[in-house]
Order: sequence, then C-alpha cells, then structure tokens
Amino acid sequence: MNGASYSEFIKPKDIAINDQFWGAFMERVRTKVIPYQWKALNDKVPGAEPSYCIRNFKLAAELTRPELDYGVPRDIGFGGMVFQDSDLAKWIEAAAYSLVWHPDADLEKTLDETISIICHAQQDDGYLNTYYIINGLEKRFTNLKDNHELYCMGHFIEAAVAYYEARGKRELLDAMIRYVDCVDTHIGPEEGKLHGYPGHEIAEMALVRLYAVTGDEKHLRLAKYFIDQRGRSPLYFEEETGKNGNTFYWKDSYLKYQYYQAGKPVREQKEAEGHAVRAVYLYSGMADVARLTGDQELLSACKTLYANITKKQMYITGAIGQSAYGEAFSYDYDLPNDTVYAETCAAIGLAFFARRMASIEPRAEYADVLERTLFNSIISGMALDGESFFYVNPLEALPQASLKDRRMRHVKIERQKWFGCACCPPNLARIIASLGSYVHSSGPGTLYTHLYLGSEARLSLAGEDIKIKVETKYPWEGQIHISLGLKGKAAFSYGLRIPSWCGSFILKLNGKDAAYTLRDGYALLNREWQDGDSLDLSLDMPVNLIETNPHVRDNRAKLALTRGPLVYCLEEKDNGKELFRLHAGIPGDFKLNYEKDLLEGVYTISFTGKKEKDWQDDALYRNRTEDQYEERELKFIPYYAWANRGSGEMTVWLNK
Amino acid sequence: MNGASYSEFIKPKDIAINDQFWGAFMERVRTKVIPYQWKALNDKVPGAEPSYCIRNFKLAAELTRPELDYGVPRDIGFGGMVFQDSDLAKWIEAAAYSLVWHPDADLEKTLDETISIICHAQQDDGYLNTYYIINGLEKRFTNLKDNHELYCMGHFIEAAVAYYEARGKRELLDAMIRYVDCVDTHIGPEEGKLHGYPGHEIAEMALVRLYAVTGDEKHLRLAKYFIDQRGRSPLYFEEETGKNGNTFYWKDSYLKYQYYQAGKPVREQKEAEGHAVRAVYLYSGMADVARLTGDQELLSACKTLYANITKKQMYITGAIGQSAYGEAFSYDYDLPNDTVYAETCAAIGLAFFARRMASIEPRAEYADVLERTLFNSIISGMALDGESFFYVNPLEALPQASLKDRRMRHVKIERQKWFGCACCPPNLARIIASLGSYVHSSGPGTLYTHLYLGSEARLSLAGEDIKIKVETKYPWEGQIHISLGLKGKAAFSYGLRIPSWCGSFILKLNGKDAAYTLRDGYALLNREWQDGDSLDLSLDMPVNLIETNPHVRDNRAKLALTRGPLVYCLEEKDNGKELFRLHAGIPGDFKLNYEKDLLEGVYTISFTGKKEKDWQDDALYRNRTEDQYEERELKFIPYYAWANRGSGEMTVWLNK
Repeated sequence: MNGASYSEFIKPKDIAINDQFWGAFMERVRTKVIPYQWKALNDKVPGAEPSYCIRNFKLAAELTRPELDYGVPRDIGFGGMVFQDSDLAKWIEAAAYSLVWHPDADLEKTLDETISIICHAQQDDGYLNTYYIINGLEKRFTNLKDNHELYCMGHFIEAAVAYYEARGKRELLDAMIRYVDCVDTHIGPEEGKLHGYPGHEIAEMALVRLYAVTGDEKHLRLAKYFIDQRGRSPLYFEEETGKNGNTFYWKDSYLKYQYYQAGKPVREQKEAEGHAVRAVYLYSGMADVARLTGDQELLSACKTLYANITKKQMYITGAIGQSAYGEAFSYDYDLPNDTVYAETCAAIGLAFFARRMASIEPRAEYADVLERTLFNSIISGMALDGESFFYVNPLEALPQASLKDRRMRHVKIERQKWFGCACCPPNLARIIASLGSYVHSSGPGTLYTHLYLGSEARLSLAGEDIKIKVETKYPWEGQIHISLGLKGKAAFSYGLRIPSWCGSFILKLNGKDAAYTLRDGYALLNREWQDGDSLDLSLDMPVNLIETNPHVRDNRAKLALTRGPLVYCLEEKDNGKELFRLHAGIPGDFKLNYEKDLLEGVYTISFTGKKEKDWQDDALYRNRTEDQYEERELKFIPYYAWANRGSGEMTVWLNK
Repeated sequence: MNGASYSEFIKPKDIAINDQFWGAFMERVRTKVIPYQWKALNDKVPGAEPSYCIRNFKLAAELTRPELDYGVPRDIGFGGMVFQDSDLAKWIEAAAYSLVWHPDADLEKTLDETISIICHAQQDDGYLNTYYIINGLEKRFTNLKDNHELYCMGHFIEAAVAYYEARGKRELLDAMIRYVDCVDTHIGPEEGKLHGYPGHEIAEMALVRLYAVTGDEKHLRLAKYFIDQRGRSPLYFEEETGKNGNTFYWKDSYLKYQYYQAGKPVREQKEAEGHAVRAVYLYSGMADVARLTGDQELLSACKTLYANITKKQMYITGAIGQSAYGEAFSYDYDLPNDTVYAETCAAIGLAFFARRMASIEPRAEYADVLERTLFNSIISGMALDGESFFYVNPLEALPQASLKDRRMRHVKIERQKWFGCACCPPNLARIIASLGSYVHSSGPGTLYTHLYLGSEARLSLAGEDIKIKVETKYPWEGQIHISLGLKGKAAFSYGLRIPSWCGSFILKLNGKDAAYTLRDGYALLNREWQDGDSLDLSLDMPVNLIETNPHVRDNRAKLALTRGPLVYCLEEKDNGKELFRLHAGIPGDFKLNYEKDLLEGVYTISFTGKKEKDWQDDALYRNRTEDQYEERELKFIPYYAWANRGSGEMTVWLNK
C-alpha cells in the first residue's frame, strides 16, 4: 500500500523519562497500580469482587491441553465479564513498558510464566479467547457485536507488541500472529467468510501496530477491512443479530447501531456518536490506516470527527463522553459539568487519536489536545497515592447530589478502590507507563517535540544517531532546555511545539535568539545540527481566564482558570460550600504560590473574587434587587489533584 | 374530639363560576377530558393501551354475584395497574362536580349505572377492590405498602362524597361507609388488627371528608390513626415486608421508607421527602386532622413541612418533586429546571395542602401558593385544546436533550395523548371541576376570599344567607368587583386576600375608600354588611422580575418574569433557538399586549433584552474577552400556555 509521508512517534524503549511531574505518576503506576492489578487478576484482593481473569486462562489451558494441571477444577466455568481477558492484556502491556524504564527480573519472570499459560490456552487453529474456549468454541464469532472477542484480541496484540519491543521476546507475539491468522480465515471480504468487524474497537489500531513489527501486509489489510466494512449496508450487526438471535440492547434507543459507530460507513460519519471509548478507539485506527495507506477520504473523515469532538464535544479538561447513557457522546455543545460521564478511558482514547493525527500532520490542534487530556482528564483518574481511581471525571462535584440525585449516581466524589469493570486503572497504567512515546516524532528530515518533559531520547535521523535531552520544570514553569547529542552533523528541520495557551515565547539557539518559522503551532528550525547544540524555549505561562463558545449552555457566563496545560478548580476544602455562588468579577493580580506540602507539591492560584451574599430573609423568590456581593479570596488547585483531601464540592467553572 | 376554630371552604355546589379564564378550562374538562376519559376507562380509545378499569369492575361484580352477566369472561383476569380502580374513582369525582355546574341527564345516568356495577362488586363484608376480588381475597391487606388498596378506597370516598354532595345520591357513599367499616375491622390500634396505613396516602384526607358528611367519629378516628401510626417503630412496612415476603424496591436507595413518608413518625418529619404526590397528600390529611382535632403538635409538623416545601423545594411555578428518581423531593435548594420531575399531580397535591392550611389560618403564604400552583404548574399540565397532557412540567425544555439526554427522558416537549399510568389528566379534571371550592371560606363571624374569579356564591354566615358575586378579568387585570346580597344585615369580618406579588392596591367600599386592616396578607373589613354592599379592589399588577435565593444553584444569576399570579416564559417560537444565550440586562419599559388570537387569548410581555453574540470563529474555548451582546426584543407568554404551538425550546429563567 502507498503510505503518505509522516512523522513517527518515538518508541518507549528509546526514551528515558526523568521528570519531576510525570516521574511521580510513573512510579505510582510501577509501585502501586501494576502490583495491585496483579493481585486483582489473581483474585487476591480481600473484599473485592473476584476478577477470575488468571483463573479463566488456567482453566482454558487445562481444557486445551488436558495434560496440564494448574489446579483449577475443569467444571468450574468462565468467570467475570465477557471481556475479562482484556484486563490481563492491559496489565501485560503496562508491565512491559515498566520493564523498559525499570528492569525487574521478578516481574519479567511473572510475565513469562503468565504468557506461557496464555499460550497453552491457544487452540491449534490459533483461536485464543477464554470465554469461548471454556463455554464452547462452536459459538465463537457469533456475536461480534457484543462479545468482545476481537476487542480482547486487540488488547493482546498491543500487549504482545509492547513486550516484544520491551524485551525482544516473541512468544506472545507469535501467538497473536497465529490468532490473527485464525481470525483472518473466518472474517473478511471473501465469500464464505463473515463480513464482520469488532463491536468494541481497538483491533484496528492494534493490527497496525502489529504490522509495524511484522511488516506483514495481511495485518494492515485486516485493519483496513474492519474500518472499510464497518457500517456498510447491509449492516453486519443487524444480520448477525437476526441470524444468531442475539439481543440488541440499543434497539429502541436513538443510538441504535451508532452506539458501536456501525450504523453507517465510517467515511460518512460526521459527528462523534455512541460509546465514547469505542468511538475514539475506532478513530485512532482510522487515522493509523489513513496514515499508512494515504487514503485521503479516510483522513478527511478523521479530520471531520476530530474537529467535531474538539470544537463541539470536548470538555476543557480534555474529557469526552458527556452522557452516562451509553457512556456516550450526546450532541454538539452539550457539555454538562455535573452529570458528565467523562470516562478516564475515553480521555485516554482521545489522546491516542490526537497522537495519531499529530503523526500525520504536526499541527498544534493535535498536540494541544494530547497535552490537555494528559495533564487533566487522564491523570485526574488516579489518586495521588496511586490506590484509587475515577471512572467518571466530573467538572463539578456536589456531594449531596451524588447521593440523592440519580442524574449523578454515576458521579463519585471520591475515587474508588477498583471497579468490577476494571477498564480505567489498567488503561491509565498503560498510557502513563508508555508516556515516553508521546514526546517526540520524526520523519524524513524532520523532528518534532510535542510534549515537554524531562527526558533523554535517542533516534535515528538523516543517517545520524541523535540524542535529545530535555530539562524542564514543566508544567509548573515554562522554561525548557533542550540539548542535542550527535557524532557528526545532520541537517533536518526541528519543530518545537508552541502550546496554544502560550501567548508569547522566546526561543534561543545556543544562547542567542533563534531564527525560526512559526507554522501550525510549531517553531521550526531548519538547519544543520551538531553535537552540543542547545535550545532554550521560554514559554510565557500566565494565568488565563477561559470562556466557552456561547453555544454551550452549561458554561453560560462562566470562566475557567488555567495555567500552562493545567486546568484549575475550586474545592470546598479551600473555598467553603456553595461554590456556585462565587464569581470571578474582574480579578486583579493572581497570586501564584508553590505549596510544597500540598497535594505532593503544586502551584496554587489565588485572587480576590466575590460571593453573592446571603439574603436577609429566608424567602425562596423575591423581586429583583441590586446584586449584593462580598469579597472572597478564591484559591484554585490543579484539577487533576482534586478529591485528594476528603470529599466535598468542586467546580472547574466559576461565574463571571 | 376538640376542633380548633377555623374557616371552611365553600362547597362546589354553592358557587357558580362565570369566569373568562377559568370557564374555558372548566369547559375543556367537561367537553373533552371527562368524555375522553370515559372512553379510556372502557378501552374504547383506538391505539391506546387498554385501561381495563370498567372491565375489572364488571368482572369483579360477576365473580361476587354469579347471577350477573356483563359479558366479561370470568377467567379473563385483572387488567392494568394494581391501582387501576382509582382511575374510575377520579372520573366519577370529576363528573360529579361537572353535574353541579352543567346538569347532564345522560352523564348522570352513566354515573348511576357505573356506580351500580361498582356496588355489585362489593363483598358482603364491605370490601371493594377489584385487584383482590379478582386475584384472590385471601391476599388482601398483605401489601399495604405497594398495592394501593387504601389509596383506591380514598379516591372512591372522594368520589362518593362528591357525587353525594352534587346530586344527593347515597348509593356509592353508603358502599364506601361499608368499605371503611370493613377496613376498620382489619386495621387499627387494637390487638389482632394490622397496625398499618396506606402506602400511597389519600385515605387520610378522604376519611376527613367522609367525616364531614357522616359526622361519624369513626371516620375521623381512622384518618387520625393512619397519621399517628405512620412511621412509628417498629415500622409496619418493614414487618409486613418480612412477614409476607413482599419486595421492597427502595431498600438500597437513600429514600428507603421515606419514599412512603413512613420511615419516622410524621411529627418528626422536618423536610418533605420521598414521592412528592404521596407526601403532599399525606400533609393534606395531616392538616385536615390537625384542624379538626386541634392537635397543635400535628399542626406544627404541617407548618414545618409546608415551610420546607415552599421556602426550599418549590419551583416558581408551584411545581414540586425535583427528581425523576422516585418522582420525589430531593434536597433543599435543589431546583433543576431542565431535568425536573414536577408532576402535575404533585402540584395539585400542593394546592390541596395549601388550601387546608389556609382553612386553618388565613395567611397569605397559603393562598399565595395555592394561586401559584393553580395558575402555573397545574394548568400547564393540559393543552389548550384539552386533548393532551403533561405528566412532567419542566421549567426549561430542550428538544435535543429530551431526545438524546437520558437525564431528561422523562421530560416530554409535547403533551401526550394519555398515559398508561393515567393519574394526571383525571386529577386535573377533578381539581378544575371543583375549582369553586377554592374561592371563599367562612368561619364563625368571618368570611375570606382567597382567589379572584368571576362567580356567584352563596353561604350562610351570622345567621344570614349571603350571596357573593365576583366580577373580574383576573389574572389579566387586577380590578375585582365584589357585591354582596343578603336579606337582612350581618356583622362579620370580611378578608380579601392581597396577593404577595402585589405591591400596592386600592380598596373601595361602596365607591369610597374602605377602612380595612391588613393582616397576614388579607385586607380585613369588620363591619355590618347589608344588601348591595360592594367592594372594588384594584390590585396593581406590574411586570415583576423575580430572582431566587442564592442557595439555589440552578437559578444563579437568573431572572423570571411574572405578572399577577402568572409566571411567564420564553419560547423558541417567539425568540429563536438557544434561549440560554439571552440576557435580561436592565429592561426599560415592558410592553404588555393582549393578543386575542394567540393561545386562546393571552397578554404577552415584551422588552428589549440582549443576546450574546456568536464568536467570529468556531473555537470551543478562548481567553476571556469583553462580553459582546446584541439587542434582542424578548417576547414572553404565560408559562401555562407553553408547548401549544409545536415543539421547541422553552425557558422560565432568563440570564440577568
């Protein structure tokens, strides 16, 4: 296939992160989330609903190879959700990344042993899904719509590639290649095959990732087929439902097949619809395939969907999926702050999509969103102690409403220990553990730095091995020092992202004002580079007051406060109850204060706002009088750090 | 029992209404709702879910008296909801009232024939509920919590009294007296009886009404028992559930037994909680019993609950029941406008409660709320053609949200033809058909006029028969002319309500400035009256801009527009889409315009407000700039008349 020219993001193994801000998150993932999840997968968390995940694989292996005995009774049956396998895949993927930056022989041994069990469960024809191996293989591929076989396959492909890239081990990778072969014999355009595709997308982008490792066109072709076939008439899911007597939960909903983004061909989908995680996983796969095939129509569909999300359906925190109903997108400019769904996984999926679009075209609108999601709605999903998690990330929290208002029953005001449907914590683990792969990208003669975090990377460009060292106190400060290391000289264009929140910046090359071109949000320096060249980028990082497009009902006459990539919020802990009575007015000076002991060290922002006064009487309604305010010192903390000091009200948006 | 002194509202038969505004609603009830409902009760509405109601009664009669044959197969079973009987009771009650002001021999014949069927279904011991007569009497009284036996009894008592008072016929009344006797032998404080009470209240106030007709202390005593026993420890519903293995839907909810207002003794209930209709029906019964028994503790509980509702949980339209979850009250100051439940029946129940409190003490806070509910949230429940109905009465309507946002799936933007659970239309019919009984009240030496509507009433006071004729164009104009007719002379205090929305008024007696005392919102004239005495009350009726107590999050920085008792609203039809972008600013003159051909004739109000301008670009977020508005002529219509011109956005609350 003919791929267009593009830049490719660096791989996790080619970058070492040494960053104050992100290092703490990565350590939480390594020391807390990965070990905790391993216990969960093995049903060893006291008081928690069992996962059954490892047990399912052991049982499947015993059934596949009767000579094996893992001690699991053979008549015990499958446990957990139909997609339970994917939990293990996500764990393997996150653990594999962690081995890159923190070798750990015990963990690697556990991985190898686990992979061995997984591979023992694999059927002779390559099939590998414990739900059907245990419940009966004759039913496999009969409910692609809801039974997550291809979803689990996708996650295992991601895990297999991650582990192969991390440690060079092929066992799981080879198993997945065989599994894809198996799927390929059953699903595809040829007569006699099922003309189906995944009910929950991810296989598309996973297959592209597999293709990058194997170079086998079959892998790209299957990804492309899943995308091209999706939503084509006659609708596969409709046929499958009728033929196999499957249930169709969304039949009477306005969502219908668009819950799965499968109601019309993907190139005709103009608005992000349906289950938000599914949607952005699909769009990520579409971007991957468009990138590799040069399919301009598909790329155009990606751009349309990306614009729809980011200009009409995205929260200021980068959260998406407004509606608890279907965990879904709802409609343009519908952005309720209190009843929002805003699943952590959906924000992660948006980061996937943005990264892929940035890979196709280095335009600030992509990396800006990538940064927005990472610094806000993604990491808000995890407590600062790494031990509890948000599935839903509201922009306004009201304890009494979460208790008594069923519109908000999905909105927890405290992070939860673990979930029955444990998708978010391991998804957080795998994106944070692979954060290095979001920093730089390079193509023929081009290098881009998209995110600023302390790191040392190496890549090959213009025939040279190049080291890129970044030093910064981002996101707290806007100074970024970049130094290059290379043996000879190399001519290439180096683009440094100038974030959209930054109104002015200074860029110096080797201590002197640099000559650069500003294009699409990147400062481009096109020159011959040599060892020791250094860049100093100073991003002006003021406090910004942000307002929302007037089409958005829920942010009418409201402001949010940001600094750099961070969105801030007000918590009851600092500002008392009834945050909705506070107004910004016209702030004078913002007081910026680094509080070392607060929330593991954050910059807080304060200014003098105002609060509407209590009335003198207890009337509920009265004739309009002049508004009465009292001055109030308002104190903001970064949004990602909310709900780490007990429960209480929180709001991102403040009345003007 | 010792009753306190109080004033008693006039009975429907003692007042003839001749009012431009209300006459139209009453005619709709008589010519549309009552005949339509009769068809519905007989399963003769094409396309509608059958009611089974009349069929159930015929079947029950056939089973009770095997010699009868109404042509209903005896093995066909009970149809409809467990409380289906009550639909017929409500219809009888409304039809009975309509006979008072519009004699109709055919309708009366239908009533008599129907009552005959009902009475044939009655058991020898007086029991009369078709669900248990058909399904097996051995299960009766085993699920007072959910199976609505006493609720249906209550509605039938109301119907029986209404028909007796309307036409002097006792057949249904006597049947109900026998039914109450039956209940009294099974439920009560004595050992061996069930210490229970209704799961859905209404029997309390119905029994008081029966007592007013029969004078039988037993009837008042049973009402008082239901109230006193409610929520006492050990909880009857808990015992019943355990003993009979009933389900308990609210077990894991924060509502629990307070869904039924049965989690603690009624005198200890300080906040309105649980299912809103149930709650205000209970409070109405409590007020009735407090009035008749002089129970100050019970009266105090009523006042506390009334204050909680009207000062913390009531919409400006008089709507109550904020939450679709449980059709319930939620918590203080929680008043969402878009996702509100605001059931028509709940507003009707609040009117019942307010009327009863006004009967105990003529204080404006009671009749003000009575008027507020009647002119707004109650009549908004019915279309101007009398053929469709709202169950839910939102204060903000968004067509796209009602379609795609499941928080608002209960909020219809067009009135519906009829409901499976058809409680609101017949409840509307019975309150509108009995509206006369809300106008005047009298006690020893006192007369009060609470509502102003064109009417002629007669009552007995100070030994004289007194006629009270009211002429007015209320609510459109504030002039009220009242003339009294009596044979001799009579000394009494006459109180005319001065509505709280009225800032100034002029009161003339026989053309000259009247000497009056203003007390608790009533202008009191204490004198000797004679034939031909006339009063002219001119209520200043300006357009008011209303704001909400700052504890209410959802009305932050918003205004509502009212004139007289009417709350106004903006509709998309007159003001375009995105009503949430409109601002009042500081209005100059209000333009008041009577539009004869609009919405059956309404005063509209217009003024020059403003709308936030579109942004120049399609960004979703941007740094704060100066707010940009364009002038906009805003046109308001009365809230009750919304959604009569097709579907579109609507809002009561406008940004300041």
